[in-house]
Amino acid sequence: MPTPSRRSQQIPFSPIRAMFRLADEMERAGNGPVIRLHVGDPDFAPPDAVLEATSRAMREGKTHYPPSVGIQELRAALAEKVKRRNGLAAAVEQLVVAPGSTEALLAVMEIALHPGDEILLPEIYWPNYVQQTLIASAKPVFYPLGAGYQPEPGGARSAVTPKTRAILINSPSNPTGAVIPEATLRALYALARERDLWVISDEAYEDIVFDAAHVSPGSFERDLPESERRVFSLYTFSKSYAMTGFRLGYIAAPTLLASTLLRKIQEPLVGSTAMPIQWGGLEALRDDAPIARMRDAYRRRRDLAMSLLKPAGLVDYTPEGAFYILADVASTGMTADEFAVRLLRECRVAVAPASGFALAPEFAPDGLPVGAMTPGGAPEYPTHPKARTRVRIAFCVSDEELREGLTRLVGLAERLRTGRSAGTTVG
Amino acid sequence: MPTPSRRSQQIPFSPIRAMFRLADEMERAGNGPVIRLHVGDPDFAPPDAVLEATSRAMREGKTHYPPSVGIQELRAALAEKVKRRNGLAAAVEQLVVAPGSTEALLAVMEIALHPGDEILLPEIYWPNYVQQTLIASAKPVFYPLGAGYQPEPGGARSAVTPKTRAILINSPSNPTGAVIPEATLRALYALARERDLWVISDEAYEDIVFDAAHVSPGSFERDLPESERRVFSLYTFSKSYAMTGFRLGYIAAPTLLASTLLRKIQEPLVGSTAMPIQWGGLEALRDDAPIARMRDAYRRRRDLAMSLLKPAGLVDYTPEGAFYILADVASTGMTADEFAVRLLRECRVAVAPASGFALAPEFAPDGLPVGAMTPGGAPEYPTHPKARTRVRIAFCVSDEELREGLTRLVGLAERLRTGRSAGTTVG
Repeated sequence: MPTPSRRSQQIPFSPIRAMFRLADEMERAGNGPVIRLHVGDPDFAPPDAVLEATSRAMREGKTHYPPSVGIQELRAALAEKVKRRNGLAAAVEQLVVAPGSTEALLAVMEIALHPGDEILLPEIYWPNYVQQTLIASAKPVFYPLGAGYQPEPGGARSAVTPKTRAILINSPSNPTGAVIPEATLRALYALARERDLWVISDEAYEDIVFDAAHVSPGSFERDLPESERRVFSLYTFSKSYAMTGFRLGYIAAPTLLASTLLRKIQEPLVGSTAMPIQWGGLEALRDDAPIARMRDAYRRRRDLAMSLLKPAGLVDYTPEGAFYILADVASTGMTADEFAVRLLRECRVAVAPASGFALAPEFAPDGLPVGAMTPGGAPEYPTHPKARTRVRIAFCVSDEELREGLTRLVGLAERLRTGRSAGTTVG
Repeated sequence: MPTPSRRSQQIPFSPIRAMFRLADEMERAGNGPVIRLHVGDPDFAPPDAVLEATSRAMREGKTHYPPSVGIQELRAALAEKVKRRNGLAAAVEQLVVAPGSTEALLAVMEIALHPGDEILLPEIYWPNYVQQTLIASAKPVFYPLGAGYQPEPGGARSAVTPKTRAILINSPSNPTGAVIPEATLRALYALARERDLWVISDEAYEDIVFDAAHVSPGSFERDLPESERRVFSLYTFSKSYAMTGFRLGYIAAPTLLASTLLRKIQEPLVGSTAMPIQWGGLEALRDDAPIARMRDAYRRRRDLAMSLLKPAGLVDYTPEGAFYILADVASTGMTADEFAVRLLRECRVAVAPASGFALAPEFAPDGLPVGAMTPGGAPEYPTHPKARTRVRIAFCVSDEELREGLTRLVGLAERLRTGRSAGTTVG
């Protein structure tokens, strides 16, 4: 076999794979189900009307190639949605449909970043960001998060170099659930404007915000002329409508030229987005009620999680959005990876160690990551220390399962702490 | 707006866009429909059972994230299919599902090519190949096609440099319809083996072969140990089952390591392939009868096209597969682009000038294409001279429309020739 490209060797794996495999193995070995708090896939069903519209589109012969940027009907409805809900000023031509916001993010990075360029990412982040940065042959540089995992604009400013071309903002955040306040978003946007950076705003969880209104950074430039705009706003149907398996997302591009480049790059990236799925998405936009119902459920589960984890000393912040919380198991004396494996083995509860959300590849002077592929298919990268004792818990199971899973987690943490304070060896 | 990456500026557009726009404009202006021979999108419907299976999957709750490489049931069925129909020896783990073979091709290129590497492409080719090569920051180098647009292995050998990492083979070919004989495929494979190149075999039209059996280059290495395999075989549901709008394709990887890298790279490229669509694809594999029916129709149309174009001196070969023919309008004294515009304006028939299937970007010493973006969003690249007077005709309309469209085309060509031999100015 010829040697695979260095780039393809050096991309890390998504971190929750290992937990998936372990959880599956345990279930196959018997002794009942595992409580799956490691997966961010809503336990709800998509609205019935969406399924019907998708089926109807197929029956009506909507089975041929759509335009690479999406069908006009959906783009028009999305332009209306981003105006009404996000406060953006985007013409229909600036809306680009994608088979999921994952692909949308990659398309945007290919437009923003040239090989050797740098992008600012939060230091605890959704792992796709670094994978995609490496596909674009660019370099991730991390900006610091303070209390409650809030970005520190001063730290972001210090991370800018002459090679920086973009800053990624993710609010609400996966994996922390942090919702960034408007003042911080404005400070990050001002930095981007001052240093002429693209802003890539991943708003996948825009509809799951509990205690405040979601703010879209693109709204800050709605009154600026096109020539001064810089925000790519990215959205998805996955979380708002429990449509993860449909693979449907979209981009509001800052300018017509940016959307022309997106149209061009969608052709070789994916061709287009499945035609019947687009008609299903159009139907989803007609009714906001399912969004509110699911948001209420996630808020209830967030409150439930806080009521169990906070008294146990396992969290030091309140997530205000998304459906995640990062718990800190430092008091057990274990790393998150050790704790997660023990929790799975002893208590049949799966969580995601945050180490995988904080890989920090080191780079050689040639601009490529340092690190050779292991037999598993990727290098072992260092992890940001802040993530070392954190685990991500997702609220994508029933309230009962969440309560049971977290009760077991708290119980294990307490046993480990007690054993530790009694001088027993742990691990 | 910040400056878009040089890479994103330099990717060319897909060439049939301009004809789409012109044809749409003409229809909007009135005077009846345009006969659309420029689009390679089957005019058939997908099998009913596929639509039903897709709808059923949604109703049964198959609406959540699938694995990035596809659902196990579909991968198992595909492993069986590539064994039976393509003569490959691929374990289930080597089959990777993709949202279309477009994305599959890009994923494979990212694994085969590192920035600065070279890939051998046929000199008349499906335009995505060059777009994708530029996304991978690699360099396309073209191998010559001889009579009947058949690859010349000697010419391919001469094009290999120390930077060459892969050769792309496309049989049956888009845009020529050429089916490469086994002896030529073996010669290209032997070259790849000798120079340790990856082979990327795009077999999108595998089921549309009229006069011979389809041969998969991957079958040449079925008895070799994994360490010596090198062929990525790429397939799609789009053409075989008229499922273009479903966006469903797949890869048979040469080795387990290659499929591990594909699994890793699918995560940041697209996440996964829409879940209900995968169940529809599984259903499609249960019945080969629709394939044979559509193949018969394409053969009939190919024969019809030959019966009109050959006596008119507009073709010098017989396409043996796919649903395309390249006609040569040199005798009219016009370039293909001029002829296509005149045919559309005067006769309301749209064809695709082959110039867009033969763009040959020139490269600077830094490995990047020469050429600045025009206001349209891409550079103007030179075209291979062989394509200058060719137009691609697709057989994706009814027999009646095809006959009418080609009769008009032949009529225009004859008028132009007559005018020319009579000394009249043309153009």
